Amino acid sequence: MPDPGRPKARLPLGFVDATADTAVERAEAIDAILATYRLFGFEPLETPAIEYLDALGKNLPDEDAPDEGVFALHDDDEQWIALRYDLTAPLARFVAQNRQDLPTPFRRYQYGPVWRREKPGPGRFRQFYQCDFDTVGSASPTVDAEACVLLSTALDEVGLDGAHEIRVNNRKVLTGILNRSGVDDRAQQMAVLRAVDKLDRLGRAAVADLLGAGRTDSSGDVTTGAQLDGAQRDLVLQFIDAGDPDREVVLGRLEALVGDDPEGREGVEELTAIQAFLGGAGARPQVRFDPSVVRGLAYYTGPVFEAVVTFVTVDEKGNEREFGSVAGGGRYDDLVRRFTNQAVPACGASIGVDRLLAARRARPGAAATASFAGPVVVTVMDRDRLADYQVMVDDLRAAGIRAELYQGTQNFQKQLKYADKRSAPVAVIAGGDEFAAGEVQVKDLVAGAERAKEITDRDEWRTDRSAQQTVPRDQLVAVVDAIVNP
Amino acid sequence: MPDPGRPKARLPLGFVDATADTAVERAEAIDAILATYRLFGFEPLETPAIEYLDALGKNLPDEDAPDEGVFALHDDDEQWIALRYDLTAPLARFVAQNRQDLPTPFRRYQYGPVWRREKPGPGRFRQFYQCDFDTVGSASPTVDAEACVLLSTALDEVGLDGAHEIRVNNRKVLTGILNRSGVDDRAQQMAVLRAVDKLDRLGRAAVADLLGAGRTDSSGDVTTGAQLDGAQRDLVLQFIDAGDPDREVVLGRLEALVGDDPEGREGVEELTAIQAFLGGAGARPQVRFDPSVVRGLAYYTGPVFEAVVTFVTVDEKGNEREFGSVAGGGRYDDLVRRFTNQAVPACGASIGVDRLLAARRARPGAAATASFAGPVVVTVMDRDRLADYQVMVDDLRAAGIRAELYQGTQNFQKQLKYADKRSAPVAVIAGGDEFAAGEVQVKDLVAGAERAKEITDRDEWRTDRSAQQTVPRDQLVAVVDAIVNP
Repeated sequence: MPDPGRPKARLPLGFVDATADTAVERAEAIDAILATYRLFGFEPLETPAIEYLDALGKNLPDEDAPDEGVFALHDDDEQWIALRYDLTAPLARFVAQNRQDLPTPFRRYQYGPVWRREKPGPGRFRQFYQCDFDTVGSASPTVDAEACVLLSTALDEVGLDGAHEIRVNNRKVLTGILNRSGVDDRAQQMAVLRAVDKLDRLGRAAVADLLGAGRTDSSGDVTTGAQLDGAQRDLVLQFIDAGDPDREVVLGRLEALVGDDPEGREGVEELTAIQAFLGGAGARPQVRFDPSVVRGLAYYTGPVFEAVVTFVTVDEKGNEREFGSVAGGGRYDDLVRRFTNQAVPACGASIGVDRLLAARRARPGAAATASFAGPVVVTVMDRDRLADYQVMVDDLRAAGIRAELYQGTQNFQKQLKYADKRSAPVAVIAGGDEFAAGEVQVKDLVAGAERAKEITDRDEWRTDRSAQQTVPRDQLVAVVDAIVNP
Repeated sequence: MPDPGRPKARLPLGFVDATADTAVERAEAIDAILATYRLFGFEPLETPAIEYLDALGKNLPDEDAPDEGVFALHDDDEQWIALRYDLTAPLARFVAQNRQDLPTPFRRYQYGPVWRREKPGPGRFRQFYQCDFDTVGSASPTVDAEACVLLSTALDEVGLDGAHEIRVNNRKVLTGILNRSGVDDRAQQMAVLRAVDKLDRLGRAAVADLLGAGRTDSSGDVTTGAQLDGAQRDLVLQFIDAGDPDREVVLGRLEALVGDDPEGREGVEELTAIQAFLGGAGARPQVRFDPSVVRGLAYYTGPVFEAVVTFVTVDEKGNEREFGSVAGGGRYDDLVRRFTNQAVPACGASIGVDRLLAARRARPGAAATASFAGPVVVTVMDRDRLADYQVMVDDLRAAGIRAELYQGTQNFQKQLKYADKRSAPVAVIAGGDEFAAGEVQVKDLVAGAERAKEITDRDEWRTDRSAQQTVPRDQLVAVVDAIVNP
């Protein structure tokens, strides 16, 4: 029975701890991504976790209540402050605040947790990590093209080479098509965008319904549609079907669809400029033009892109499923203008690190996450010899070998179990005999575990010492080093 | 005049952005510290930023309101949740929740921002970084001694070798002295502790007042004292004066002060065990026994320690001042018990990374923080040649050299200014002549800046090309590499 006077040890809904294996896996992925961002010329920036809510703005898909979707509270001065929900809104605030001191273009990367107060689900948490890069202050399509190449290169570096696609679109093209067919109301255009954005999740038939009168889902919930007529809807469906592995083919189709609408033509021209910068027809085949990509966030103004893994993943129940995007971005020319009323063109992308790692783990044939190796454990057989054991630890550390004295008080067998639980590569053992002889025992726990699998005879197992060797004390470091760094 | 419809670009009180130089300086310090923690056998853990407020507990010095001192809000279920104010309380929650799956002892490190809703001031922010390590599940004094050695080693690794001291005390000693002189009320003992904790900030005379009737500060505010009588107070003052560079001398003095009080003797014995484990009299001279150290946090149960820098720092106004502690820790045997009612001994320490960096910067004779070098900038003289410039960038990146195409649209002189503002080491230049000859110009911006300082004649400055060389296009990478990695 829980004691009412004692707090329960638990985390709030949607939050999770990362233990050693996950923490190291994530840190290594982030390191690889950030090294790529630096290689491309971006510099680091760290904004704080908390911002004024009005500075963050309401760019989440859900725009109702002032603190909907975010963790917000009142500051001392009764203004709303909130945890950032992405790294783009804080960048816009930073640029608006410091524009005069920044180079133009300003090219920064940032990584860190973001927080969203949304319904958690399997693999969907309320705190997750993003790695962003952005170029602020340039409208050049070379920036958009570079963003696609950088996203692809960063995904290569985390082991998704040949296993991802960067899908690129331009929102102006769809707007152009809608203008041309008489759908020029902004709210109706956004409803079309939201419908198209659900293609991955709901499929083509549901999108067709949402473009028209609307849709009743399996729970009976009714979603109002964008109210397009049949001809308008067919045009949008033609648009989202216009993708092709050959980027030139897509450009041709889009050109036909936009006709002479100025905004639509602008969109096609921007895609054409990206195509030129990518190096022409066959170059960078991971980058594809895919009109079905629109991205949910309201702030994108032109090119949008997302990265998806190209393998089919298998979920916990063994069902195959499309994994969806692991990164996304685009051009957002109005985010800084919110503050200053000055046009500041900007473009960037964000890698969802936790989703990326989940995709990598769900890849068919993926190796299990390596467990974080523990330190060499120097066991304690004789507590009067603590100082001698500690000198062994010090010697190992001085050689750069991770090592620790066994810090508990349990017996020798339990100490070996501890070393095993820590995934220690080696246990060092010394009792009276060894000290008298100037020797130590070095037990290779990895080789020992392998050998143990082969042994079926219990008596043999008890006496097996094949992975254990007695060495002179002054060779301790060399012998351990040979095992740890083979 | 601010536009009422536009948000102002600003940060909430007490928060600050870290631009490239600061971000890199901090990341490098954290890397060095965490590598040391790993070397000593600790493994990473990452708990989320948000916890239930009751799980965090109220261990901040200020214990009044439920959300005093922390950023707290209501979760969906109307329970209080809050941003962590340190990394120890989340560790206690994690251990209580997962004890059965963890090795004993459990040795983890964690780093990250923590948040405190306290009055900001110069160098005092509401978000700051901590790097913690802890050993949970062992009461051995070897753990306490190792913590002191690890703190000292980590500070060595961030450049404070020979410039810091680890000051160690044991709260049981003071409790023993108080018991012995008849001050056995827990609340009165805590008042004594709080008074002693103010020694660094207020000085010895003010502490003497606070031990007695109390004190009126310069603003007229009255602080009630611990109400000790004259003899009791003298004993406490003798205690805080008992420090000495020779740890054995301190042990002798403390032994005399505690007499036969059991708790006091226990405290002295624990210090004696630490002394033995440190390797005896002269070993590890950075570790000193200093009875004036008590640490403000209420949860420490025995040994406490803090790291201070030993140089006198100079503040912005040129005034010398003691910098105070950059790290602290101790043994806290009751934090897990809060949840489970099981005794789980634990000991660890926390390095305040931002304070550490501030101390390092304020060190007399400290080198200025190195500025984060920018990428090689390939300038654009002819926009029709963008693809050719991009190939140069690609070639440099393929050789691991950080590089970017100039992504703006300004003229060549502005592009060089941009490269300069980015602290770029090299600018690559190619116009029609160079392309025709199969050449590029490589401008060494660091050497150029040095040379520019020497030039006083304006005409010479204009035409100076001493840091610029024309090289065959196929030697671009080799030449740039030689400049960037001399």
